[in-house]
This record gives sequence, C-alpha cells and structure tokens, in this order.
Amino acid sequence: MRVTALAGGIGGARFLSGLRAARPDAEITVIGNTGDDITLHGLRICPDLDTVMYTLGGGISAERGWGREDESFVVSSELAAYGVGPSWFGLGDRDLATHLVRTQMIDAGYKLSDVVTALCDRWQPGVRLLPMSDDRVETHVIINDDQGRRAVHFQEWWLRMRAQVPAEAILSVGAAESTPAPGVLDAIADADVVLIGPSNPVVSIGTILSVPGIADTLRVTLAPVIGVSPIIGGAAVRGMADACLKAIGVETSARAVGAHYGGRHRVGVPADDSAGAPADATAGSPEGGAPDGGKGTSGGTEREVGHGLLDGWLVDVVDAAIAADPEAVPGATVKAVPLLMTDLEATVAIVEAALELAGV
Amino acid sequence: MRVTALAGGIGGARFLSGLRAARPDAEITVIGNTGDDITLHGLRICPDLDTVMYTLGGGISAERGWGREDESFVVSSELAAYGVGPSWFGLGDRDLATHLVRTQMIDAGYKLSDVVTALCDRWQPGVRLLPMSDDRVETHVIINDDQGRRAVHFQEWWLRMRAQVPAEAILSVGAAESTPAPGVLDAIADADVVLIGPSNPVVSIGTILSVPGIADTLRVTLAPVIGVSPIIGGAAVRGMADACLKAIGVETSARAVGAHYGGRHRVGVPADDSAGAPADATAGSPEGGAPDGGKGTSGGTEREVGHGLLDGWLVDVVDAAIAADPEAVPGATVKAVPLLMTDLEATVAIVEAALELAGV
Repeated sequence: MRVTALAGGIGGARFLSGLRAARPDAEITVIGNTGDDITLHGLRICPDLDTVMYTLGGGISAERGWGREDESFVVSSELAAYGVGPSWFGLGDRDLATHLVRTQMIDAGYKLSDVVTALCDRWQPGVRLLPMSDDRVETHVIINDDQGRRAVHFQEWWLRMRAQVPAEAILSVGAAESTPAPGVLDAIADADVVLIGPSNPVVSIGTILSVPGIADTLRVTLAPVIGVSPIIGGAAVRGMADACLKAIGVETSARAVGAHYGGRHRVGVPADDSAGAPADATAGSPEGGAPDGGKGTSGGTEREVGHGLLDGWLVDVVDAAIAADPEAVPGATVKAVPLLMTDLEATVAIVEAALELAGV
Repeated sequence: MRVTALAGGIGGARFLSGLRAARPDAEITVIGNTGDDITLHGLRICPDLDTVMYTLGGGISAERGWGREDESFVVSSELAAYGVGPSWFGLGDRDLATHLVRTQMIDAGYKLSDVVTALCDRWQPGVRLLPMSDDRVETHVIINDDQGRRAVHFQEWWLRMRAQVPAEAILSVGAAESTPAPGVLDAIADADVVLIGPSNPVVSIGTILSVPGIADTLRVTLAPVIGVSPIIGGAAVRGMADACLKAIGVETSARAVGAHYGGRHRVGVPADDSAGAPADATAGSPEGGAPDGGKGTSGGTEREVGHGLLDGWLVDVVDAAIAADPEAVPGATVKAVPLLMTDLEATVAIVEAALELAGV
C-alpha cells in the first residue's frame, strides 16, 4: 500500500510514527513543510523536516518534541557571549551538526531534496521524506506593533513574539514561483490513500498547499484524501494555531478547519462542478496559509466553500456533533474518534480510523 | 613603547603572554599567521589567530594549548555520525561558535581583520591583533606518497599525517598576490622594537614573511628586530618544525634558523650592501616558508646568507656555543638565555632578555 502524508512538525511527526507502526509494510511518502525554514548564523535550518526525521529516526527529544535527545547548547551560549543573536531560536549542538551538513551540501549545489535523502541515510526514518519544494518558500507574518507595520519571519513571530502580536496576514513568500520537489505530485497522484496530518492548518499544511500544483493534485488524485483535525474542542492540541487561523479568518474549531480544507464532493458530484473547487488554485493567491489580501477577503466564504481537498475528516470525540451534522464539511465524511496522541497505541488507533474512513 | 611581534600559534601565543606581562603599558601589535587557515564544514577556521586570541583572552585550553578550556566535542561527534569528514581536525563546540561568527562576517563581506577586531571585542586580549593579510594565503605541502605526488593543505599534512610524510616543498599559496592587512607594515615601520616570536620558522614566521612587503619592511625599519629561537638543542620545543625545516633545506638548530632569518648587518654595514639582503624579496619565490623550487635550490646559501632580518637572535643556554661564535648569524648579535617558557615568570624573563638585546 502506498500512503502519502502531508505533515508539519511535532504533531505531524507523531502522527507519522503511528502511521509507520500501523502499516509497517506500506510505502510511506511524507511531504514536509519547509515554510518554517530559516537561515541563522549562516546555517540553513529546516525545523519541520528535521522534527519528522529525528522523530522517526529515534533521535527526537521526547520531552520537547523538537530537537535532539541528550542535547547540549554550548555553541548557542558561546554565540550569546559574542553578542551574536538571535537568542530566541533553540539551536542545540547535536542539531547544529545537521544544519552544518545541510548548509554545506546546499552551498555545494545540492537541492534540498538531495540533502534530505543524505541526512535520512543516517536516520533511516522508514519513510520517504520529501520537502514540499526545493525552492525557497518562507512563511512571513505581517504584524503591526509599536515598531510599525512590517513583515517578520515566521520563526521570529512564533518563537520570539510567541504569536502574541496579531498577524495581519501570513504570507508564503516565494510560493507563487515555486515548484513541488521531485516526486511530490506523483506521490499524491499515485497513492492509495493521502493523509493530511494533524498539523497547523495555516503555517504547515497551508504552506504545503501554497506550492502550485499540490492542492490541484490533491483535488484530482484517485486516492481518498483524509484529514485529521489538529483542533480539539476549539483549541489546538499544541502550538498557537489559533493566532494563525485568526489571520486567515478561520475559526479555531475542527468544523471550521474541516470546512476550510473543504470536501471534494466526490460521491455523485463531478469534481469540476464542485462548489468546493476554487476557480484557480495556483494563481496569485496562495491557498490556506496565505490569503493575499489579509484575513478579511475570503474568510467568510472559505468557511463554507473550502478548498475541495477532503474525502474524510477525522475529528475528536469531543467534537462529535460535527460528525452528526452533514453540513459541517460538505462533500466530505466526518467521523469522530479520540484524537489525542497520548502514546503510540492511541496514535495507531487514529491512523486506523483514518484508513478505515478512506476505505483502504 | 610600541612593540610589534610576529607570531604563529601555541609558542607565539605563550611568548605574547610574557610580553604583555613584561610591558603592560606597551602598545603591542601582533601580526598573526593565517597560512594555517582552513575551511572545514563550511566554516572558516583561523587556528593561529584564535590561539593568540584565546591565550591572551583567558579562554585557551591550558592542557592542549589550542582550542577552548572546558571544551566539548558534540558537534564533531555528530558530524562523524553523518559520515562527514574530516575527523582529524579537532573542532570543539565552543571553538565552533567563533568560526560561525567569523564565517558569517566574511560571508557578509567583512575583511578578516574586521572579523578579528570584532572577535577580540569579546576576548580583550590586551594587544592589537592583526592577520598578516586579509587575502587568502594558505600553506600547502607537496608530498609524494603511495597516492602519488600532490599538494595537501598544511592542516592535513600536519594533523592527519602528523608531518610523517616528507614534504618536498611547502608553498604559501596566494602569497605572491596578497597584500599585508591594514596596519601591518606601519606596525613594523613605526615600532620601537620588533620581536619575532619562537614560532615555526617555516609555516608560521616564514608564511608571514611570504606576504610581499613584510620582509622588506622588517629590513628597513629603524626599530631593532629581535628573534627568539623556537629550536633548543637541535629540536623544536613543540610541534614538528623539523619536518618543515627539512623541506626548505635548513638544519633543525638555533644556529641554522638564525642564519636562515639572517642578520641585518646594521652596525657599520649599510643595509643595501648587505650580503644578507636578497635581491628581490617579493618576486616569485616567497621567503622563508616557501622556496618555490623545493629544498634543494637555495638551502645551501640560505644557511649562510639568510634574509637579512635580525639585529638580535636569542638562543637557549644549551646553545650557548652559537652566541660565542661571531660567524653564527653574521650581522646579528646572538645571546643565550634560558628559553623554555615553563611558566609566565620564565617567559617574562625571555621577553626582558629580548628587549635588552634590542637596547630598549
């Protein structure tokens, strides 16, 4: 069985652990978010790809969920002693070696997907990990604080500002000119099932969808597409998805996120007639993560129309009312199961529910 | 008093500690060797400059004499886990932060001398530390082993091969096209005394002298120039100077190294008549560190003629016979004092002897 999953960082990585455990013989392809990527101290850092790689490779910090187990921060403390910032990005010594290898390879002309392959040669994550794109696509956030209206890198907003400064808009810079990394579209088109992991709908999944061609291929693949809600009972399980969803005018609820992704209307409704398929998925306005005009422009209709991506939408049992409402995510089947990934067993059960919903 | 010193790594740095302690009020300028510099893992590394900076700044490893005290090697072990070499270069975590700051600054367009100034802002070494040149000058070694005749970076020869593979020649690559860093020539010309530290005569001092203009300025400065022998009783105090001296056809003895540097013949002998002044110091054939034709071409005459640099030459008491021989280093005064830098007090005494020999 070929399973393709879209994933961001911590939540996505844990979900993937469950997927690998549930279907050890499956050919799993992971399309990872690179919008969080940042260059710091001259090092190219890919937080989400590394979180997936370390988690599946057995190197993740169990306590933090990001970075390496048994980590030290000697280099960071020395950089601080030199007065070299920023200090808000947690850069561990073990982790830094990964960035050194990656930066060297990129400087030598390798593509990011080549780098990921090389790094995974050590980590053996048991999945084929692909960056969403080899091009530089970076999530920037438009804020307006006492220093005025300006764009900051997502990491600065997320880590330094703890997403406390309201985002006027979240932009996927470079997305419009980017192309999916080799293998990404085929992995969606040729899959037996596509899973959208319980990652941030805006800055993880939304950013992946902002790469032209990916959302279109999700709409036309013959594989069932099942999403897993990262929102449980009106709040993100972790992270600050609320602040991101606000920026694109989507309520923080499993219902609103499901409706934002949108049903594919495949049962008896031809896709090209579907109210869920936006007229032009790849032009100017990146989808999901980056409405070009800020939150006001399309939020109202998005909640009803969505992007036409889902055949099935898994929500938590606390959100069971959504599953009972056929209008919650029109065009998709909604099912409620326990969604807290408390341990591997619970996560495997979520994956099984998703695969069952997909009918595979 | 303005004192200018030429220095390599460990030996030079210890000598400078003594100089600073002996003359705390002096304006000390250090011209450091950058021929050992190397780019590893995408990081620009300047071992000799850092050894001086860390030693005078209180950050050096007392045990090793290079790198940082209280050092860890987490990043290195991770790089090894990725199979990324080389493994023969000791790259500590604390040290690595220095290289990250330097590499970032150089990539941003700063000159090496700017970088050194910025790094010293933290370390406050109490001297003005100047790289010999802002240009890339790298010491390469011609060897001929079972892989054939080829050039390897000095660090590979020194660290990986432990200088056990004979050097056919030692080249100062880039030297002919390089210029001294800002302030270097003025520091020699305007000094009250110039000291040539007890560093490797070939790959430290010789490399500094390979930068066009530096040897010439040493020959014409009104300041007395005093050298301190790194060779005691026919052997280098530390390091593998023997292998380097062999490559340029100079015997490993305080006498031969003194003669190689050569006397300035200032007492009653006009400099331009001096047998010690080579006809053309800056053309094709770099001096000291890098005879272009290998060891056979000029070794014989160099032992007698030298480069006309020294007014005084300090040798160890075990080499007192040299001091008694007026033909040992023609044109320079040779004096024997204890030269082992066993502690700061002993090192201060060496500096005092050098300054006394200079008459300042």
